[in-house]
Amino acid sequence: MSDSNSNSTKPAIILYTAPTPNGFKVGVFMEELRSAYGFNYEFYPMNMPKQEHKEPWFLAINPNGRIPAIVDRSRNNFVVFETAAILIYLQRYYDPENKFGWDAEESPEEYSEMMQWIFFSHGGVGPMQGQLNHFLNAATEVVPYAITRYTNEVKRLYNVLDIRLSQDRDYLAGNGRGKYSIADMNVLPWLRIREYSKITSLDEWPNVKRWCETTLSRPTWEVAGNVGRTEGTGSLYRVQG
Amino acid sequence: MSDSNSNSTKPAIILYTAPTPNGFKVGVFMEELRSAYGFNYEFYPMNMPKQEHKEPWFLAINPNGRIPAIVDRSRNNFVVFETAAILIYLQRYYDPENKFGWDAEESPEEYSEMMQWIFFSHGGVGPMQGQLNHFLNAATEVVPYAITRYTNEVKRLYNVLDIRLSQDRDYLAGNGRGKYSIADMNVLPWLRIREYSKITSLDEWPNVKRWCETTLSRPTWEVAGNVGRTEGTGSLYRVQG
Repeated sequence: MSDSNSNSTKPAIILYTAPTPNGFKVGVFMEELRSAYGFNYEFYPMNMPKQEHKEPWFLAINPNGRIPAIVDRSRNNFVVFETAAILIYLQRYYDPENKFGWDAEESPEEYSEMMQWIFFSHGGVGPMQGQLNHFLNAATEVVPYAITRYTNEVKRLYNVLDIRLSQDRDYLAGNGRGKYSIADMNVLPWLRIREYSKITSLDEWPNVKRWCETTLSRPTWEVAGNVGRTEGTGSLYRVQG
Repeated sequence: MSDSNSNSTKPAIILYTAPTPNGFKVGVFMEELRSAYGFNYEFYPMNMPKQEHKEPWFLAINPNGRIPAIVDRSRNNFVVFETAAILIYLQRYYDPENKFGWDAEESPEEYSEMMQWIFFSHGGVGPMQGQLNHFLNAATEVVPYAITRYTNEVKRLYNVLDIRLSQDRDYLAGNGRGKYSIADMNVLPWLRIREYSKITSLDEWPNVKRWCETTLSRPTWEVAGNVGRTEGTGSLYRVQG
């Protein structure tokens, strides 16, 4: 997709992000697209401690005041917020060979499968592990009931992923053994920070463990770890001026 | 879409459901499709107190053991689970005039907007109001910290909806004042049960209040309240034999 905007030297996509699991998901996909197609983008690192994501200029982009969000200069500065909606948008417009997803018309079943696992993660693993992290690491009082509740629920959800991956498959969506897609990118960043959630071993879920081992070690994932950081990355894709 | 399966007298879609907010969302859309197109479907009321949704036959349909789920007889018994994935699937294949959504190719921005608000609800309002309901109505001990946390978060999310609807619009997605779509159906069932969440008034959010008043009173919503009930509905669309 060409940059039809005034300044054609800038990449089409600006990513507003920070180094959180949700920010990481979009950073990973940006890096996969860069690796596969030479896709280019800029990121703006949000200053979360200063609550920059609650400032009026950002609320005009995302009224929910959450990162990540993108602006697409090639489409009249069209805004997309909500992590999974961003992944789906980018896959549709910036993954022309469907290397990381499926076309809804050509592969309707696989497309729907991908969506089902994206929603499973977006409504399950994400919010539940997010609650667990809050009660383990951020709550202003110790609430054993909540820690038990969310630990159990996160483990139950990991178990659902393990059942899916036990069915002779390497990835969540796709025919046969599946294909590495945005359905995987949309949830693996939560498993990547499992130690922060005091889940120290994946031995209970051997298929999840295998999936993590093959995916989390991708070079793109290492680069993505720096996307959105306010320090230490020099000028890596940062918005200039 | 024609029923290409063996028994052509049966409707294509079987809905496995129960009278919960997520079940209700799909029931509402089924009823909207019935009203608009004469769409036909069957439902199987899951016996939740007996944990029927955790039985092996249902886990083979949805490994997450949650309702709702659908089976599409016209597509080799293709299964779709996760509420929002079901709405998107049904909209794509059973709403040919896009009365309740947008075609991704013809209306890419509106389609993406719809997706953004669906994800906002699926990862925000749903899980957070679900946690609030748990701590208010089901928890085995009183946890004031959690009740305060989830009450505040649900109110914050209702406020985001109010901001969106304050922007000269009647519905969450679509150009101009927006169009009643699956983005609305995907979240309004949570507002419908707000009293169960001890949110007794919508006066703080006048735009949300207006949106609820116009939508929750639709006749389709009344019928949908009976979809999935195990008693009192007689043979209303129930799976036969």
